[in-house]
Amino acid sequence: MIKVAVLGYGTVGSGVVEVIESNNAEVSAKAGEEMHVGYILDLRDFPGDTYESLVIHDFNVILEDPEVSIVCEVMGGVGAAYQFTKQLLEAGKSVCTSNKELVAKHGAELLEIARDRKCSYMFEASVGGGIPVIRPITKALTAEKIEKITAILNGTTNYILTKMEKEGAGYGETLKKAQELGYAERNPEADVEGLDACRKVAILSSLMMGKNVDSGKIYTEGITKVGTADFDYAKAAGMTIKLLATSQALEDGSVLAMVTPALVPLEHPLSVVNDVYNGVFVRGNMLGDVMFYGRGAGKLPTASAVVSDVIDCARHIGRSSIVCIWDKEEARLADIEESRKRFFVRAKASAKEAAQGLFPGSSFVEAGRTEDIGFITEEMSEKEFTEKSRALGDALLGRIRLA
Amino acid sequence: MIKVAVLGYGTVGSGVVEVIESNNAEVSAKAGEEMHVGYILDLRDFPGDTYESLVIHDFNVILEDPEVSIVCEVMGGVGAAYQFTKQLLEAGKSVCTSNKELVAKHGAELLEIARDRKCSYMFEASVGGGIPVIRPITKALTAEKIEKITAILNGTTNYILTKMEKEGAGYGETLKKAQELGYAERNPEADVEGLDACRKVAILSSLMMGKNVDSGKIYTEGITKVGTADFDYAKAAGMTIKLLATSQALEDGSVLAMVTPALVPLEHPLSVVNDVYNGVFVRGNMLGDVMFYGRGAGKLPTASAVVSDVIDCARHIGRSSIVCIWDKEEARLADIEESRKRFFVRAKASAKEAAQGLFPGSSFVEAGRTEDIGFITEEMSEKEFTEKSRALGDALLGRIRLA
Repeated sequence: MIKVAVLGYGTVGSGVVEVIESNNAEVSAKAGEEMHVGYILDLRDFPGDTYESLVIHDFNVILEDPEVSIVCEVMGGVGAAYQFTKQLLEAGKSVCTSNKELVAKHGAELLEIARDRKCSYMFEASVGGGIPVIRPITKALTAEKIEKITAILNGTTNYILTKMEKEGAGYGETLKKAQELGYAERNPEADVEGLDACRKVAILSSLMMGKNVDSGKIYTEGITKVGTADFDYAKAAGMTIKLLATSQALEDGSVLAMVTPALVPLEHPLSVVNDVYNGVFVRGNMLGDVMFYGRGAGKLPTASAVVSDVIDCARHIGRSSIVCIWDKEEARLADIEESRKRFFVRAKASAKEAAQGLFPGSSFVEAGRTEDIGFITEEMSEKEFTEKSRALGDALLGRIRLA
Repeated sequence: MIKVAVLGYGTVGSGVVEVIESNNAEVSAKAGEEMHVGYILDLRDFPGDTYESLVIHDFNVILEDPEVSIVCEVMGGVGAAYQFTKQLLEAGKSVCTSNKELVAKHGAELLEIARDRKCSYMFEASVGGGIPVIRPITKALTAEKIEKITAILNGTTNYILTKMEKEGAGYGETLKKAQELGYAERNPEADVEGLDACRKVAILSSLMMGKNVDSGKIYTEGITKVGTADFDYAKAAGMTIKLLATSQALEDGSVLAMVTPALVPLEHPLSVVNDVYNGVFVRGNMLGDVMFYGRGAGKLPTASAVVSDVIDCARHIGRSSIVCIWDKEEARLADIEESRKRFFVRAKASAKEAAQGLFPGSSFVEAGRTEDIGFITEEMSEKEFTEKSRALGDALLGRIRLA
């Protein structure tokens, strides 16, 4: 029998227990052996809970139980979670996690320990919730050089942008509604400022590059400045607005990564990734484009991804199941100022002539608005755009990159 | 060093050689050992080809070379390919294939031999070309009970339907164009009559059920009757038309599978799967919906999928890498006559009153056409629909199921 321990009995933790026990026939058959949860570590007690008897408070019980070979770290954070994970891996126990913060920060180190100790550190649930993303990239696209990743990685912001588009509501009121429905946290900063998406794209970028991509160095811009006027223009131009996380392996060996709102043409498959769904678009040198789509968050989808990792570990007891390459060496991030793209610009109506002079070759978008104008520039570098748009002064009302 | 043999030096076979040799650094790193192509089996000679020296004509050389542990069967067909695969697996050599016909017909048997001989039979490339579909379903969604699969599995028909929609062209002329461009074969029957999609959905259904789903028993209808008038109505109703392969695990243990043209709402992610792309929508009991999207065919994408299987085998030399459950036992197919859905009906304009009487509660679609009418029925069984529509006599011009 395979005895699994679960660290943290919160939303994802209780989901992991539910998936292992409710789908037990499937899970055990795929694992090749009967599997059950042996311990649940939490500081709290859960009187009356079905799995009350499994709850313990002392981590060392798990660490020292030779029967436990696989542990799910679903506590979150980079403090105790880091210490526990390290000790478990050093003891040769595999760890499966949904903790994107920890993976982004210490992934390279923890993978190295796992490899040395012939166990696994798995993190399918850290990106894209229940969508298989990490495993397809590391275990299916193995014959590929991955060149570019373009993704919607945060369900909260995608829900807000979808509602703004469909209902014409403003950012503030949509956020409030999302909070009431539980789709956004009371302190929504990590989501709306793009930090969550940034950590996830750091993980994907590290896997693409085979080197560590520091999330702190990725240019990140949230959705707080996107307004209803922007959606009016986007619609008129046959586009929508998404918070895109992008990462591209450049020919000079550096990686160009960023998280920003972007105009996405309606023909692009990412344009139909709506509400709390996520979509990850991957370009391989042989394969061309593939996309993975599904629920990017939620108790059971995330738990299902954690348990798929547990099954993978169960089939590789005594050896490492890790295929990915993610060295400690820091990847070099490209200067985004030099990167080239087109920009959508919204400006005061009075600035039309100035805009035409500054951005020759732009296409003006007719959205039936009189208070402002909107246009899409030709391709230029970020640096060039910043300089030119500065000349618009306070007539510049907003700008969004094109995907 | 891992020595790989390739059976068949056609489009996919030459792609496999190209992927292994062009992406050799990646491929060898992921395999954990240097990998090269040792033999190419073909009846023909290839004078002047870069890999000319590897071409052999005698299958037994491969079978008897103890250094060859992995073989790619990319010859196609169910004759020699079946005999070779069986002999190789019985000799303990893993086989990776793109041959959907063989997998659909003998998958269960070949998997059993591979398991017994501690080697692998892998077929990622048999469905969805380069899109990771088989591996995500068998190795990532392991914690799930898969409930339903809805998929666009044939690039040729999807290309034709996309062109008909975008350009308003008829079926015949679009097919001709597709043949000129090499997107359709000179004898296009297997594609346009739905047979190719049927084999692929039989494979996916077998993996979903864990039992053998006989492709010969799956109700299959091609796209030859879809016309420009249907697209007029679809567009007016906010939908598009796709050749959908669907498979659903019913509660009574049977499987409801079919391949038919279907109206797909524009909000559905499958509606943006255009041209030669494929999309596979999977519903799991914990996960909800996920979709895999990408190029469903083509030399390099398909070869990339074959090589990802080769790498998987390379990491499991001496043991089987097979996780999926696909028993020889035949799955019971549900009677599609009892299945319920809505239907789009196109009829002569003169039959409007009769239609209203026969199909109360239908919604008429206004597409600006005078020669015929179009309406969408309420949900009913196939049987009920057939009976009612028969009463329309020769006023019935066409019918397409709703997705």
